[in-house]
Amino acid sequence: MDLLSIKDPAFLKNMNIDQLKDFSEEIRHFLIEKISKTGGHIGPNLGVVELTIALHKCFNSPTDKILWDVGHQSYVHKILTGRADQFDTLRQFKGLSGFPKMAESEHDVWETGHSSTSLSAAMGMAIARDIKGEKSFIVPVIGDGALTGGMALEALNHIGHEQKDIIVVLNDNEMSIAPNVGALHNVLGRLRTAGKYRWAKDELESFLKKIPAVGGKLAATAERIKDSLKYLVVSGIFFEELGFTYLGPVDGHNFEALFENFQYAKKTKGPILLHVITKKGKGYKPAENDTIGTWHGTGQYKIETGDFIKPVNAPPAWSKLVSDTVLKLAKKDKRIVAITPAMPVGSKLEKFAEQLPDRMYDVGIAEQHAATVAAGLATQKMKPFLAIYSTFLQRAYDQVVHDICRQNLNVFIGIDRAGLVGADGETHQGVFDIAFLRHIPNIVIMMPKDENEGQHMVNTAIKYDGGPIAMRYPRGNGIGVPLDEDLRQIPIGTWEVLREGTDAAILTFGTSIPMAMEAANRLQKQGYSVKVVNARFIKPLDEKMLKGILDQNMPILTIEEAVLQGGFGSFVMEFAHNHGYYHSVIDRMGIPDQFIEHGNVDKLLEEIGFTAENAVNKIISISPKKQKRA
Amino acid sequence: MDLLSIKDPAFLKNMNIDQLKDFSEEIRHFLIEKISKTGGHIGPNLGVVELTIALHKCFNSPTDKILWDVGHQSYVHKILTGRADQFDTLRQFKGLSGFPKMAESEHDVWETGHSSTSLSAAMGMAIARDIKGEKSFIVPVIGDGALTGGMALEALNHIGHEQKDIIVVLNDNEMSIAPNVGALHNVLGRLRTAGKYRWAKDELESFLKKIPAVGGKLAATAERIKDSLKYLVVSGIFFEELGFTYLGPVDGHNFEALFENFQYAKKTKGPILLHVITKKGKGYKPAENDTIGTWHGTGQYKIETGDFIKPVNAPPAWSKLVSDTVLKLAKKDKRIVAITPAMPVGSKLEKFAEQLPDRMYDVGIAEQHAATVAAGLATQKMKPFLAIYSTFLQRAYDQVVHDICRQNLNVFIGIDRAGLVGADGETHQGVFDIAFLRHIPNIVIMMPKDENEGQHMVNTAIKYDGGPIAMRYPRGNGIGVPLDEDLRQIPIGTWEVLREGTDAAILTFGTSIPMAMEAANRLQKQGYSVKVVNARFIKPLDEKMLKGILDQNMPILTIEEAVLQGGFGSFVMEFAHNHGYYHSVIDRMGIPDQFIEHGNVDKLLEEIGFTAENAVNKIISISPKKQKRA
Repeated sequence: MDLLSIKDPAFLKNMNIDQLKDFSEEIRHFLIEKISKTGGHIGPNLGVVELTIALHKCFNSPTDKILWDVGHQSYVHKILTGRADQFDTLRQFKGLSGFPKMAESEHDVWETGHSSTSLSAAMGMAIARDIKGEKSFIVPVIGDGALTGGMALEALNHIGHEQKDIIVVLNDNEMSIAPNVGALHNVLGRLRTAGKYRWAKDELESFLKKIPAVGGKLAATAERIKDSLKYLVVSGIFFEELGFTYLGPVDGHNFEALFENFQYAKKTKGPILLHVITKKGKGYKPAENDTIGTWHGTGQYKIETGDFIKPVNAPPAWSKLVSDTVLKLAKKDKRIVAITPAMPVGSKLEKFAEQLPDRMYDVGIAEQHAATVAAGLATQKMKPFLAIYSTFLQRAYDQVVHDICRQNLNVFIGIDRAGLVGADGETHQGVFDIAFLRHIPNIVIMMPKDENEGQHMVNTAIKYDGGPIAMRYPRGNGIGVPLDEDLRQIPIGTWEVLREGTDAAILTFGTSIPMAMEAANRLQKQGYSVKVVNARFIKPLDEKMLKGILDQNMPILTIEEAVLQGGFGSFVMEFAHNHGYYHSVIDRMGIPDQFIEHGNVDKLLEEIGFTAENAVNKIISISPKKQKRA
Repeated sequence: MDLLSIKDPAFLKNMNIDQLKDFSEEIRHFLIEKISKTGGHIGPNLGVVELTIALHKCFNSPTDKILWDVGHQSYVHKILTGRADQFDTLRQFKGLSGFPKMAESEHDVWETGHSSTSLSAAMGMAIARDIKGEKSFIVPVIGDGALTGGMALEALNHIGHEQKDIIVVLNDNEMSIAPNVGALHNVLGRLRTAGKYRWAKDELESFLKKIPAVGGKLAATAERIKDSLKYLVVSGIFFEELGFTYLGPVDGHNFEALFENFQYAKKTKGPILLHVITKKGKGYKPAENDTIGTWHGTGQYKIETGDFIKPVNAPPAWSKLVSDTVLKLAKKDKRIVAITPAMPVGSKLEKFAEQLPDRMYDVGIAEQHAATVAAGLATQKMKPFLAIYSTFLQRAYDQVVHDICRQNLNVFIGIDRAGLVGADGETHQGVFDIAFLRHIPNIVIMMPKDENEGQHMVNTAIKYDGGPIAMRYPRGNGIGVPLDEDLRQIPIGTWEVLREGTDAAILTFGTSIPMAMEAANRLQKQGYSVKVVNARFIKPLDEKMLKGILDQNMPILTIEEAVLQGGFGSFVMEFAHNHGYYHSVIDRMGIPDQFIEHGNVDKLLEEIGFTAENAVNKIISISPKKQKRA
């Protein structure tokens, strides 16, 4: 079958199981081949080939609503809904998104990226359906990892209570992104092997009939056995207790079993939890054999060998630099404990876990809990290092405010993937953290210019005893500077002049520094002398240096790879006005007031005018030289 | 016993049960009397008198750590730890806090205010204890309502997995703040009445021995019954499945039962969930008889009658005005659905629930879920009204970004208790919302000047089809203006000139308007002509009007009862600089970069210099008139 010719999933209705099996193989070949060139979430998608086909065969999308939790497992769904021809552009600028997008297809009824939202969304849709008196099935597909996210549990609790008709498909691959943690994972493990506990209801009843009718105590006991039938015949008791009808576990690669269970679910009233067991990476050996999550999302790879195609001699990844530095310090300081919400691989904490297992906690997809565990540790004079992606820290905003900053606890937040992240796009860009953190009292926020400054900042954060301290670092690799042997501390709230100048000053930090330097160099050729400052502390500002610049009446350009609203540049303006520098000329470059799509980071930055050329033009336009010339 | 003489809880060790019973009564009298004068959380505290005494008798605080989830039930704990003499100042400026505060006592090991944080904090403390090799008991006390919060569920999952020694006391009063919702509540209900299901292990075993040894199938069945013993003898199976040892349910007003269970828990390894049943309001009839939560937290009341002492003929409460207006519109528009996370009373949604029960959802303490349910509804062209306190919206920051604003869905967020809230203090001040919302693309944020504008804004929000729209409104009552019969719409992004002037302009909104008007009036007497603008749209700004003011080169003072960092005033500066008004004089008044304690709102505002007098001085200092005179 020509995948490129598919327009919508209606054709599946006429296919028999043998045809579907062949079709599944075609899809797998397609995915393995396409993703080897574009990169993407290969493991999760290979795991849901049959499940996705079965969903589209048994339900009528988009009347019936299929919601993909997290959403990185929606590639098969995209193929079945007419988007196979766009896979060459997967996760690229203006290309096919790696997540569900309403703008791409009417079959994408809910957009995701962050985990654990699908059950709440399904609940909203079910309420709407029932108020309108419509008939449709609402089918969120959620992984076992995503189920540990607090909001998914809030939703289970509410859905069970309201007894809404929702068919929750639990896609249990025993490993979401990293190997799963949490007691719920153990519950699922017991359900998976429940065969030996499960009782056929009729078998038990026939047994009960054989119990002699001796009356009295024994009969009463037998009665109670009958009362307890539900405990015996139902193995999904955890979910049953929450008000769900539990179905499964079902082999998620077996069409017959899937069809049978979907049909049963469609006939059953109230909320259903259909437990489907799938194998992540199914059909591609290197991905199937992955036990730690390296094949969850990948870059390019060689199909034959499963080798990743990586740049040779790349500088260290930022995550690795930070985690290794924390580990180095932790070996000498027993107070240091590392915490990750389900990102031990992404945050490069594997080595930490291996070498100091009792001081590394992967808490599962549970950012709120992670932040407050860190706070709890800090009350006991420990030094928690919370490694968390900028975009996922959004989940813990209240915990950062209420538990960490309000109690002024010494928590070191490592804000990974700060700035644009590229291929994951809109839902994952790490561009809000400055704006949602800098208004919180007590917090220090910093970002290093390179790996060497980065390691000193890690040391600074660990040694700091004044309260919460956050260090932002970008996705990807450092710039390749040599690392000092000895770690030192950087005085809090101090900036660094990278380049002197008298006509204007650029205040910037982190990944934007090279662009600022380039702009300054270009401007020099045009006769402008531009100062460039590494504003490595975003909060507190280096007030002394900033006052100095303002006193010289130099126009200022701030550059930040983060949202402009309420960001660093806005902080600089606030400072100027607070101190009566009303006539200061301050211009800003950063992310405008819009969500930034997926694509190559450089392309995205160019698209929003985040270029050295624009910096040059801005400096020229605000420089008094220009005004003199004009 | 003289409560005022208590220094620490050590004296409890020598008291026998009869003495403790008398002592409990003394405490109840004390609480009923003191709170009748100060207001406070009377219901929750009357419910935990025996529980708190038993905790302090069985554990050694502060070596053993007692954590009060939410924290409004810590009054008895405060009495037992030497703070009875401060109850006359409860919740007042510089007086005793209504929540645990480390600065008050070494026995307050964890500060709370928002719910569901105690288990995560306990986990952090347990990790610290074990790394240090210390011995101590860690005892979070969490209500059944708080248990439905996502982060508490995340913590249960993680604690169960790690098998840490933590004794979770579940204080189940069958009603947290409002009557509880959620399937978990039903689980607890079944446990409460579990007597009829619970099997004595020995009784069952003796029964099994009597089963004839017929061999074959029947014997195998009997074997399986033995395997299933745990299902039969354990009634707390939900928690057992999560890896906890479930104890209870225990009568929380019975000292013997409490002591016995605490002693057992202390000897048991791994995480314990001790299920304690208490009666909220116990010992004070009006509070005991409360079924909807009016005695959860109160103002002053007459002890004899239980009548609340309320101002006569007060204007309508803001919550009531907003909820009633939504209800009025909902009667004509079936798309409108109201959602509250456990605050039907606080948000005055009782009438809505009564009149349109199928369109009002109390989702329990589950702010994240609440926000995304609203998003799910909006995808189906419904008009969700999410009523949520400013401080609790912090919990749903990511859902507002990722689910509501990113998908640009028509969700109406009613931000209740915006601004300072007074007595609840630090953890509850609604001062961050502008700073954490205004940088999110697509959102509209507004705040009305009075109830009449408020009702038109509600109508505006419901009619608006451009995406998410939030309306802030303060705690307490309106100012008493007449309400128009017909509702109209206020054009998005339009401000209103309240007073013309030429020397300076004050831009402000909501509760700060009267102060601005007073300042302008005083300034008039001093010869200054000051314009006052009702900047009712915080986002988007009224760019036309703002440009006009900037074009006239008028100095601007912004006033906002919200954090200054990244707030409205900062937005005005950003606009000025973006549009080249570099020489604009913009000064700001608002909440400085610190957490604001509890106390009377007017006192708190005075303390931070948020006064008409200061506004006058600021205007004079930035006015060109002054410069001319100088």
